[in-house]
Amino acid sequence: MFALEEYKQRLETVKKRMVDEGVDVLLISNPSNMFYLTNYSAWSFYVHQMMVVTLEDAQPIWIGRQMDASGVGKTTWLDEHHIISYPDFYVQSTERHPVDFVANILTEIGQSARTIGVEMDVHYFTALCYERLKHGLPNAKFKDTSSLVNWVRLIKSQKEIKFMKRAGKIVEKAMTAAYERVQIGVRECDVAAAIYHAQIQGTPEYGGDYTSIVPMLPTNENTSSPHLTWTDKTYENGDFLTIEIAGAYRRYHAPMARTMSIGTAPNEVKELAKIVEEGIEATLDFIQPGMKAEEVESVWSKTIGKYGHRKSSRLGYSVGLSFPPDWGEHTVSFRPGDETILQPNMTFHLMPGIWYSDYGVEITETIRITDKGHELLTNFSRDLYEKPVLGILPDEQTS
Amino acid sequence: MFALEEYKQRLETVKKRMVDEGVDVLLISNPSNMFYLTNYSAWSFYVHQMMVVTLEDAQPIWIGRQMDASGVGKTTWLDEHHIISYPDFYVQSTERHPVDFVANILTEIGQSARTIGVEMDVHYFTALCYERLKHGLPNAKFKDTSSLVNWVRLIKSQKEIKFMKRAGKIVEKAMTAAYERVQIGVRECDVAAAIYHAQIQGTPEYGGDYTSIVPMLPTNENTSSPHLTWTDKTYENGDFLTIEIAGAYRRYHAPMARTMSIGTAPNEVKELAKIVEEGIEATLDFIQPGMKAEEVESVWSKTIGKYGHRKSSRLGYSVGLSFPPDWGEHTVSFRPGDETILQPNMTFHLMPGIWYSDYGVEITETIRITDKGHELLTNFSRDLYEKPVLGILPDEQTS
Repeated sequence: MFALEEYKQRLETVKKRMVDEGVDVLLISNPSNMFYLTNYSAWSFYVHQMMVVTLEDAQPIWIGRQMDASGVGKTTWLDEHHIISYPDFYVQSTERHPVDFVANILTEIGQSARTIGVEMDVHYFTALCYERLKHGLPNAKFKDTSSLVNWVRLIKSQKEIKFMKRAGKIVEKAMTAAYERVQIGVRECDVAAAIYHAQIQGTPEYGGDYTSIVPMLPTNENTSSPHLTWTDKTYENGDFLTIEIAGAYRRYHAPMARTMSIGTAPNEVKELAKIVEEGIEATLDFIQPGMKAEEVESVWSKTIGKYGHRKSSRLGYSVGLSFPPDWGEHTVSFRPGDETILQPNMTFHLMPGIWYSDYGVEITETIRITDKGHELLTNFSRDLYEKPVLGILPDEQTS
Repeated sequence: MFALEEYKQRLETVKKRMVDEGVDVLLISNPSNMFYLTNYSAWSFYVHQMMVVTLEDAQPIWIGRQMDASGVGKTTWLDEHHIISYPDFYVQSTERHPVDFVANILTEIGQSARTIGVEMDVHYFTALCYERLKHGLPNAKFKDTSSLVNWVRLIKSQKEIKFMKRAGKIVEKAMTAAYERVQIGVRECDVAAAIYHAQIQGTPEYGGDYTSIVPMLPTNENTSSPHLTWTDKTYENGDFLTIEIAGAYRRYHAPMARTMSIGTAPNEVKELAKIVEEGIEATLDFIQPGMKAEEVESVWSKTIGKYGHRKSSRLGYSVGLSFPPDWGEHTVSFRPGDETILQPNMTFHLMPGIWYSDYGVEITETIRITDKGHELLTNFSRDLYEKPVLGILPDEQTS
């Protein structure tokens, strides 16, 4: 848990943004935003729950399922008057909806005719949530504040940076575990198991948290599709794979991707890996506070463009605190048109992955913007790793 | 992957329900429902994607992000005409929304003025998705079909049962790993790491898949709140904990919860565990096809009621195939008012957890309804497990 003062400061900043947006009441559905303001981290977001911020109240109000209320009391700074729970018969019912209950609470506390900010494009605020809210609060006005709190989260505090550095140490351990475990005859699931073990065990000093995206380790032609996970096939000599994982410490993430092969990698993979490495180095050399997000992408594009390569997807995005299903913060993206000015203590997943129809390469870094440039949050060679094959001499290895 | 015939049969059943509901087009946002119809399982649901089922077309159409299209082609039975992707600049943009693209496709294929079923209360169909859809298709009618496909999934095929039994073997291994690892001086995260490793490694014959909910293992007073995960605190003599986990095999789940202590458990935990065990045994003795879901709950309530105990939350729910954030299928619940008639090859997580303000007990089973009664999908003692403490004789153990 952060110091109470840090939570109060965060809440004050959120309230200022609410005023700027002309919003009297903010309804938070995004678990990352709930955690940011209160430290609430239980896996209870699979049922509807919300946090209510009003301009007047010194604490947010949590509204959720009965069996989760005690966990809110035990793990957050909210007092008992700010923890309100609905009976279990609201859960996945075709007759009642938890948001009906939320609307009634808002009415009871005199907030039914206000301008209410809702996170319109957040996974946990479904279409039906909004319909029930409009039905229950016919005199309210609604405004889309999908990423209001997300933008407050953009610049990290010293303690948040410390947490992300711990996450960085954890992802180094997890990637090392993958490198060690991959071998001919080993199954993809065995490698995934080794990654998970390292992620969760953490270091002797601090334990790991679950990551908001599971390990993704597609092999061979499946590397063309970065979000495939794993199978129970065994690796063969000459296989290549991308490994995209994160370390997490108390919900703060440091993602990292690397590309490796068993024995010699195919030539096209080797060549693409070199170009991606050159591109990421050129981009890192260039990054500094004061520049626009789209400029970061432009350096990358020019560097790989010299070799005739092109990446159609964004080059990266802000990261930090998150809950499933995504570790991105949904604010800044490194892509044309994003004119956000980089500032110290913004943190990004610099994501130079290139995916062609039958193969792909991913070599990525989590970085912090510093006063003068950038700092890597992990320390791990970016080279394509060609794992020596057990029992086969190098010149016998197939490509 | 299931046989093509099984996918086609599933699709036919879905189309029949669409006709019953008066729906011409079904938009699927729930990743479990996408997987059920096509085998698509990538972790790409953190960006908007949809599957379109029309009454006329012999295949669903997948619409999603460009970098994910190749994975759909490589892992499903959809042909290239049924895989449509949107450019990356739609992702998390404030100017464009992926559902605008979906609306355009529906218009192009002549479905813009139909009755369209949407999954109104599904995590991945946000309020904004619905607003953009209404905006893009002003001549369409919309109908809530949140659980249309979920209900089709309720009765499992023989192969689905086989997958769930494999998941059952995996969760036995994961619970065993937890029992073995818990000890004085060991951290909660070390136990979680052991659970994950066993879950993902699976058995020598088949590997494990990630589970839709992470391991939950609250300790001592935190057992009052079942959805707390873990910390990096070390266990002490006399600690008790609930462990709720699942095994997963190719997205099919078998959840299980148990309660254990390090050394002697507190008396109130022991007593409650005995009552929960008696309750679950009485309930299992009673379960058979032909009865109503609410009757299952009623036997349980009467049994524990004799001892003055009461559980206010539902006693269980249907399980099987799932994606995060929930392993429940969102159809049948064991609770008053649910009059669904149990039928062979329905599968449930029978969930007798009781949570009081300072402690809780969970002892659960995943079951299949058979022709005459039920079958457990796991084989694991339900007794409260009091782990012998290393280096301390039993009569020295504190309670």
